[in-house]
Amino acid sequence: MKTVTDSDGIRAIRWAQGRLELLDQRKLPCVSEHLSLGTAAEVAQAIRDMVVRGAPAIGITAAYGVALAVRTRCAAGGDWQAGVRAEIELLSAARPTAVNLRWAMDQMTAFLEDVRDEPGDVFLDAAARIHTEDIAANHRMGEFGAALVEGEAVLTHCNTGSLATGGYGTALGVVRSAYRAGRIKQVYADETRPWLQGSRLTAWELVQDNIPVTLICEGASAALLRTGRCRWVIVGADRVAGNGDVANKIGTYNLAVNCRHHGVKFMVVAPTSTVDMATPSGAQIPIENRAPDELLALGERPLAPAGATAWNPVFDITPAELIDALVTEHGVVEKPDSAKLRELMRKT
Amino acid sequence: MKTVTDSDGIRAIRWAQGRLELLDQRKLPCVSEHLSLGTAAEVAQAIRDMVVRGAPAIGITAAYGVALAVRTRCAAGGDWQAGVRAEIELLSAARPTAVNLRWAMDQMTAFLEDVRDEPGDVFLDAAARIHTEDIAANHRMGEFGAALVEGEAVLTHCNTGSLATGGYGTALGVVRSAYRAGRIKQVYADETRPWLQGSRLTAWELVQDNIPVTLICEGASAALLRTGRCRWVIVGADRVAGNGDVANKIGTYNLAVNCRHHGVKFMVVAPTSTVDMATPSGAQIPIENRAPDELLALGERPLAPAGATAWNPVFDITPAELIDALVTEHGVVEKPDSAKLRELMRKT
Repeated sequence: MKTVTDSDGIRAIRWAQGRLELLDQRKLPCVSEHLSLGTAAEVAQAIRDMVVRGAPAIGITAAYGVALAVRTRCAAGGDWQAGVRAEIELLSAARPTAVNLRWAMDQMTAFLEDVRDEPGDVFLDAAARIHTEDIAANHRMGEFGAALVEGEAVLTHCNTGSLATGGYGTALGVVRSAYRAGRIKQVYADETRPWLQGSRLTAWELVQDNIPVTLICEGASAALLRTGRCRWVIVGADRVAGNGDVANKIGTYNLAVNCRHHGVKFMVVAPTSTVDMATPSGAQIPIENRAPDELLALGERPLAPAGATAWNPVFDITPAELIDALVTEHGVVEKPDSAKLRELMRKT
Repeated sequence: MKTVTDSDGIRAIRWAQGRLELLDQRKLPCVSEHLSLGTAAEVAQAIRDMVVRGAPAIGITAAYGVALAVRTRCAAGGDWQAGVRAEIELLSAARPTAVNLRWAMDQMTAFLEDVRDEPGDVFLDAAARIHTEDIAANHRMGEFGAALVEGEAVLTHCNTGSLATGGYGTALGVVRSAYRAGRIKQVYADETRPWLQGSRLTAWELVQDNIPVTLICEGASAALLRTGRCRWVIVGADRVAGNGDVANKIGTYNLAVNCRHHGVKFMVVAPTSTVDMATPSGAQIPIENRAPDELLALGERPLAPAGATAWNPVFDITPAELIDALVTEHGVVEKPDSAKLRELMRKT
């Protein structure tokens, strides 16, 4: 009853028999295996360890984590609401940059304050609703974004598909809709170091959808844009600040600079749950730095000598002035700025 | 007698007991092992397979390959010069983009046309001279380039050090000289996908020199340049066209675009053997495309699903207008163009 499905058949997040099952995205594309989680602490750990990643997917996962917390705390007796509040704190702190996590926790906290007696399935229903609405929003964004797209191909970065969301995807949803509408013939995807979300996840999704996908290393993006094959670069977002600055996977800003240089349009696709009016500009968005080891080794295999270190910020900030279109479930904001974002958020 | 050494102690190319020994750069940084080669055909194969890489190093290696060809062909009797000419053809065709290979083969062909009788060590001496002169040129470029450098750090791309040259390096020679002169405190190095020359080779060289090195993925370069920590990005070249356009490792053009956007200076360091006045502009430089597998797997480990492909050009073209300084062994050419390059080449 609570399992949310999507037209493309990939279900990275699913509820089954009172537990949360997450597709372990660290093992793709070689192994497709779900982990089964029974507590909010396990869910927080899975988010930290990148079993699940992608701003909307993290928010949805944490919402189900709250449903698990409610079950555990109610079974334990005592002040279950105080216990759940503590678990929401834990989940909120799992990763710092994507604001959808905090947004989802704010939603669940609001339910918590309304519920008086035995909550039953109220929290599980709320999590499933966040999940379902995310998929619906993605389909709407797919239509809005695809209407703008033209050219032989588009370039995308990281993974913003079913794996990164409730299903269908943000930027990859636009790519899916544009391909199905015959508006593009193929997709270029940055491999997206250091986690290779492009190679491991985006290519995996597109191969299953029979959409032709060609990987490039990030260094090749400027050479690709110079060929004229792409008229749009399409990316997702982990947080959109009040002035339209965008935090997204490291390498996004680099692409935006190259788009402007080559006269290629730059599109950000994100639901309004990613917009954070409380953060005035990109300068206030916390950027997560992960361990140097993610660059210095691949699994057990060292890629660099002992004695070398690495700088590993996993997000960067793209200033609003480099963004041609911000696509949300409430429509397209061209050349986003503070006034246009305030106007957008009045619709939510 | 014929072994050419260098102050930094790394000898990737060495002559020993009538054979050419190449440090197998595919196995660094984990294993440091020399391959011993006895024929020009083996040398050509080693160049194709990237046992040795880097424009000047390829030229020097092929020159020693000609010395091997002369020994083999003279021992076999008959028209040894015709045989050597055929082996020079084979060596010249091993890789297409770097022009130093053709330059070195032109030098050796000129010797071939002068020699009448038994050549003895004439060709080996010529190869060793090319090798020695390359190292001397690198030290001169190091001084010229370092005099321009300022700021807390510089960013470099790929490997342009002792491993890529006769010794000391081109761009990495400038980095070495600038660090020794106290003009910079640390070095950022792109990991340089897909072969990871930055992680495997540049970091390996700098760790041995006790120069602090921090690796970044290519996607992080724009975020790094925005911090203001680097006032120069310094790269090598595989070919400089007559108008100053530069072919270099994929990702170089991307950096040049980002330098211009951020007001960071962009330096290309290359000996005049890399300048090809016969190629009018970058549009005529052949760009080597290597196998998609270099992106789709790391060793035995698949990085992408079956059904995905990759576009893997291993060089790109940086237009002259994005280059602030071209540093050669004959001095610095600021904002290179056709007239300035003609003037430069009159000095050679």
